[in-house]
Amino acid sequence: MTALRFTATYRIRSDAASIEARAQAIAVEQSVEMPVSAIVEAEILRDIVGQVESIEPRGDNIFDVRIGLATATTGHEAGQFLNMVFGNTSLHPDVVLLDLAIPADLAAAFGGPRHGIDGLRRRAGVFGRALTCSALKPQGVPPARLAQLARQFARGGIDFVKDDHGLADQPYSPFAERIAAIAGSVGRTCYVPSLSGDLDAMRRQIDNACAHGINTVILAPMIAGWATMQTLVRQYPEVAFVAHPTMGGAARIAPELLIGKLFRLLGADAVIFPNHGGRFGYTPETCRRLADQARAPWGGIRPSIPVPAGGMTLDRVPEMLDFYGPDVMLLIGGSLLAARERLTEETAAFTRAVARHEYR
Amino acid sequence: MTALRFTATYRIRSDAASIEARAQAIAVEQSVEMPVSAIVEAEILRDIVGQVESIEPRGDNIFDVRIGLATATTGHEAGQFLNMVFGNTSLHPDVVLLDLAIPADLAAAFGGPRHGIDGLRRRAGVFGRALTCSALKPQGVPPARLAQLARQFARGGIDFVKDDHGLADQPYSPFAERIAAIAGSVGRTCYVPSLSGDLDAMRRQIDNACAHGINTVILAPMIAGWATMQTLVRQYPEVAFVAHPTMGGAARIAPELLIGKLFRLLGADAVIFPNHGGRFGYTPETCRRLADQARAPWGGIRPSIPVPAGGMTLDRVPEMLDFYGPDVMLLIGGSLLAARERLTEETAAFTRAVARHEYR
Repeated sequence: MTALRFTATYRIRSDAASIEARAQAIAVEQSVEMPVSAIVEAEILRDIVGQVESIEPRGDNIFDVRIGLATATTGHEAGQFLNMVFGNTSLHPDVVLLDLAIPADLAAAFGGPRHGIDGLRRRAGVFGRALTCSALKPQGVPPARLAQLARQFARGGIDFVKDDHGLADQPYSPFAERIAAIAGSVGRTCYVPSLSGDLDAMRRQIDNACAHGINTVILAPMIAGWATMQTLVRQYPEVAFVAHPTMGGAARIAPELLIGKLFRLLGADAVIFPNHGGRFGYTPETCRRLADQARAPWGGIRPSIPVPAGGMTLDRVPEMLDFYGPDVMLLIGGSLLAARERLTEETAAFTRAVARHEYR
Repeated sequence: MTALRFTATYRIRSDAASIEARAQAIAVEQSVEMPVSAIVEAEILRDIVGQVESIEPRGDNIFDVRIGLATATTGHEAGQFLNMVFGNTSLHPDVVLLDLAIPADLAAAFGGPRHGIDGLRRRAGVFGRALTCSALKPQGVPPARLAQLARQFARGGIDFVKDDHGLADQPYSPFAERIAAIAGSVGRTCYVPSLSGDLDAMRRQIDNACAHGINTVILAPMIAGWATMQTLVRQYPEVAFVAHPTMGGAARIAPELLIGKLFRLLGADAVIFPNHGGRFGYTPETCRRLADQARAPWGGIRPSIPVPAGGMTLDRVPEMLDFYGPDVMLLIGGSLLAARERLTEETAAFTRAVARHEYR
């Protein structure tokens, strides 16, 4: 049994008199989940029980607690990793999982993006500027209509066009018919279909997509299950994966950790997140930290490209490019679709704005 | 395309002036996720876009909003169902998914517990009193030690003994070795091993368990992924499933809905939840509603047995039985294990207390 540990940082609301007991309780909850006094084996106490490493007051009854958890408890399996990192503690309303420091062996077991920013740039044939992306919507329309929209996006010069995350395998737009219709309509644009269902279904969908020359897909780790994503990333090393944040409900896991760091660790080459000032409530600081975590040097782990989204509009392109820099993929969906019959022209205006941007 | 809808109730913090717009925004977010003005197809507006059905003020800037969502968008698939019910909206810090009204066709597509309370009672050979359960801990000890604990629990007359949810497929206690050791040690007690990993791994684990005569397993729907659970429940109709609440982080989904109703819908025959007054913060009212939802008549959907847990002790048995009634499974883990060499006797005291209880 290895004695190696990884470190989880929890942000806890507590009065000062209780924080040491709270911290110790979390260390036990996230490891052996039983009274420590009932453990007879010395090696379990030494190697498996979580260890409180530090408690730092942050003011206003907030404390950041670092706990060392045994790597061995994860079995190097993604679902169990999530279970050991935050499983039962997620049920406490006053605890947020703030950060994770992951040793090299554990990081290597997950492996991170197989393609990363460079690989996505090669797919698009685009270097030195931000990548562009839009989304096929609304769900409910038949494949031919989605293919028509995809053609207009492609003619406008977009780099990537993804399925709306609501597009699954519904009778009104079955996956197989949808990708057959769209794959032939996008020219040099990369079409990114959305995976759904269980592991078997997702494998069939990827196989089907690959048969149509598609090499990038999107899935939602919090719905698919982390083990499902880990398996797909391993099984399809030639495929690039985009992570969608749906069900990320990031109140309990800091979004910069969940989306910026953990989805990257799981192998997402691109991570979509709600940009500040859009339909969701993330602050600019959260978005910057999230993008930083997605791109920061991290041993042998490739960077993921951050994809700010969620109600973005053409007029925000310059500001977003200045905020995130060129290693970003801008995703504008509904706002382009609102142009209706002028979709190609609006898309062309988007891609021009990105191509011609002069960074401040 | 069917025009049938199911109804989701969201509890939203908002000022009164904004609530209609907030409600409409959620109806759009959880359906087409694009500007409604950009939708050209009349049938999408009629059949697919979410519809705000009612807005009820609850005081203190809290509103309960009922939204009708198209059943067709779920494709009758569990992961996509979660995505459409709460996916993107989970990212809003001021919205809680409070309840779901599910029409018969959708309920039938999931099917609920295949065995339910009666089926679990038949497994244990116990009728007319509460069921008892304990847990094998701590993780880190080898299979032989876990088997020894299981034997002591069984000699104490416990009905079910489950793996700690931290027990996965780690090198110190591989699944196959663990169940081989434990299955032969429990006599008439039902041993409930914990599933982990991806769908393939879980299928191998169930096949392995069945080969040892095990007919009940435990898994965590929020980690495994709902699609994984839906597939397993369908593929193994002879196996009973216990749902563990880990990663349920129920701040954003009301626990009585998530654990009491939705885990039941997915096919959990037993649902574990943190009892009031234990290590977690659920109130007695939440626990009662959760247990009520798990057992209430629901068309053709079998009841799930509620399993209150999380720091329970022997002295609380009478109070818990009076609170929940006889259709309950009491789960006491660490507190029994704290008896160490007196584990069998302490377990026997637990099972006696349940058997002899006179309801008030």
